Amino acid sequence: MTSAAIQSADVDLSRRAAKVVPGGMYGHQAIRHMSDSYPQFFLTGDGALITDVDGNEYVDLMCSWGPVVLGHRDPVVNDAVRAQMEMGDCLDGPGPVFVELAETLVDAISDAEWILFGKNGTDATTACLTIARAHTSRSVVLVARGVYHGAAPWCTPVPNGTLASDRAAMGYFDYNDADDFDRAVQAAGGDLAAVMLTPFRHVEGEDQELVDVEFARHVRNRCDQLDALLIVDDVRCGFRLAHGGSWESIGVRTDLSAWSKAIANGYPLAAVTGCEAVRDAATTVFLTGSFWMNSTPMAAALATIRRLRDIDGLALMQRAGARLRMGILAQAAASGLTIAYTGPDVMPYLTFAGDTDRRRMTCFAEAALASGVYLHPKHNWFMSCAMDDAVIDRALQGTEVAFAAVRKHFGPN
Amino acid sequence: MTSAAIQSADVDLSRRAAKVVPGGMYGHQAIRHMSDSYPQFFLTGDGALITDVDGNEYVDLMCSWGPVVLGHRDPVVNDAVRAQMEMGDCLDGPGPVFVELAETLVDAISDAEWILFGKNGTDATTACLTIARAHTSRSVVLVARGVYHGAAPWCTPVPNGTLASDRAAMGYFDYNDADDFDRAVQAAGGDLAAVMLTPFRHVEGEDQELVDVEFARHVRNRCDQLDALLIVDDVRCGFRLAHGGSWESIGVRTDLSAWSKAIANGYPLAAVTGCEAVRDAATTVFLTGSFWMNSTPMAAALATIRRLRDIDGLALMQRAGARLRMGILAQAAASGLTIAYTGPDVMPYLTFAGDTDRRRMTCFAEAALASGVYLHPKHNWFMSCAMDDAVIDRALQGTEVAFAAVRKHFGPN
Repeated sequence: MTSAAIQSADVDLSRRAAKVVPGGMYGHQAIRHMSDSYPQFFLTGDGALITDVDGNEYVDLMCSWGPVVLGHRDPVVNDAVRAQMEMGDCLDGPGPVFVELAETLVDAISDAEWILFGKNGTDATTACLTIARAHTSRSVVLVARGVYHGAAPWCTPVPNGTLASDRAAMGYFDYNDADDFDRAVQAAGGDLAAVMLTPFRHVEGEDQELVDVEFARHVRNRCDQLDALLIVDDVRCGFRLAHGGSWESIGVRTDLSAWSKAIANGYPLAAVTGCEAVRDAATTVFLTGSFWMNSTPMAAALATIRRLRDIDGLALMQRAGARLRMGILAQAAASGLTIAYTGPDVMPYLTFAGDTDRRRMTCFAEAALASGVYLHPKHNWFMSCAMDDAVIDRALQGTEVAFAAVRKHFGPN
Repeated sequence: MTSAAIQSADVDLSRRAAKVVPGGMYGHQAIRHMSDSYPQFFLTGDGALITDVDGNEYVDLMCSWGPVVLGHRDPVVNDAVRAQMEMGDCLDGPGPVFVELAETLVDAISDAEWILFGKNGTDATTACLTIARAHTSRSVVLVARGVYHGAAPWCTPVPNGTLASDRAAMGYFDYNDADDFDRAVQAAGGDLAAVMLTPFRHVEGEDQELVDVEFARHVRNRCDQLDALLIVDDVRCGFRLAHGGSWESIGVRTDLSAWSKAIANGYPLAAVTGCEAVRDAATTVFLTGSFWMNSTPMAAALATIRRLRDIDGLALMQRAGARLRMGILAQAAASGLTIAYTGPDVMPYLTFAGDTDRRRMTCFAEAALASGVYLHPKHNWFMSCAMDDAVIDRALQGTEVAFAAVRKHFGPN
């Protein structure tokens, strides 16, 4: 007796994984945190589409949680990777592409006078913290409550297995709240090393909030007054909101910035950039990893950065994001459903009014998935340059079905 | 007027890097920590050989600081990577190769019942620490003094920019010293979560020391008595000393192990393996990274692990290491120089007696480099499967010149 479940490659792989991986899978890519219908394993991707191991194809509104900015298996990037593989990847030291990429990024990012490369976004945010403490000889680093800066003990959102002492010198304030920020600064006394902020507020499961420009300026001024450093964690936003730093458009200068995700269209790379004043401190801290000098992710990054300019990738993503937003807003209105559609068009997030138990959003995500649209019910979505009008319209066909399902199951809200 | 220096591609790249990288380069791959004659930038590698950007070819006794175990640009591994790139790399979740690799490693490593993947060796050692604390609900982790476990604040060898509180619950003892270990255990009181050890003692610039089997058993027994976990940091040794865990040959069981470096012949991958009792704790800690599910490094790892077995890679490396050791010992004796040649044959290190200022070793390394052998004066060397008798003999031609240089400049020691 064979059931449909047994014939599913995803179910088979998940059963095998359950034996050799704690909990079957880990991190935010563990679908045990999602609805049962979500596939855990993927076979391939092509441009704006992904295919799971059972052959189901989806419009990918997650872009692999951010890294895929040009599109899956972008041929220009992959050609650059293959060419670099023919030369060398992991050698006894860096290759020429290290310098070429470093110069390209320092040139592209206004506030960057120098750069360092790592692998994980967490490598980059942790290095910023360490460099700031070395530069100021102070301890306290302030971050906004609930905002994600990585998986290290000082910033993990789940403290299991870490110690309170790992966060002994961290301080917290509410994003965009200047009074609460000033209170946290006051509490730090003379020991404020740095403030770390994301370009806008993106917290899992919550409506997104753009930065209040006056707040950003206030933080910059306080840092200047107190000789503390302003760190922008551009890991999630970088190379989608701007070619350089995400706060260049609001004219707020950063001392250190952390980068990763979209920097190399999915190849593992992270970076720290900094201003001239902090260069010396950066030479005194210990930063290393076995694969940090690998050339293929750097070749991928160079190709990605150049291609984003060549095809005006930011405009393509903006066009796609605006089309999706307009379609979603129209569909919600037509369904008589009240939603919040928040964040920049290229990194949007959707919630339903009054959906405190998130049942509407879960229903929406499941129905979208069944209609060929891969999106996440708790995490913001991402646009890629591969999303042309036809792709967005295909996504909107799925979201239309999804809105209908929510309306049918829950009625108007 | 053009000088020889200006015509060097390495000098040119180094000058450009000095502008955009703090200190010109960072980590242990920064040649500012080495003699002036060392090249900073490399163009390519092929089997046991590397070529710098000026076209100088060397026998690579560093194997990219460990990762290159089959040889540079191993065709079987690179074919596997290219094939995986044709399918997919960074998708919204793992690919089938994740499960295949997980099963292969859990099968190969006796003490492994489950596995988790990351990018850096530091990801793996930090995850071991966190999982051990979650499992035991205790804080203290003991490590051997001076032994390297990564670049995170809890273990960095250079504390600049980190805080004493980052290491608040760390305890230290001398490797292979049971009495000192017991003292550290005593000091931990009832709060001992884990002990982390490398398979043998490898500390930069010092003679290497194999583990005293009685000491390893003693640590295992103490951990059992106290319900603490024994973590082996196999990041540097794994997949060179054994197909499974490096302590399997001495019969000492581990609860958690950290892996990286040679696991994928240079592609970025790290892993944690653990025993059944610790599985539940591993599900409770937060472990994630943007590129941790990427399939190409996993395809590389699968190809590497299989190829190491197919060609009996450990025997090849052992043969190469033994030939190098015998040659080096004979050359030292013939030169009338007293040396220590320590550690396993596949990961040896050389020091000169009485060379407290390391001038002899620096002279040796420079002369070897000039004779076409890339080795490090302060860090242990590595064998790869690409080192056949002819390669080792070529390396020995260089070390013979190097011994002669030391003898000439410093006389007998």
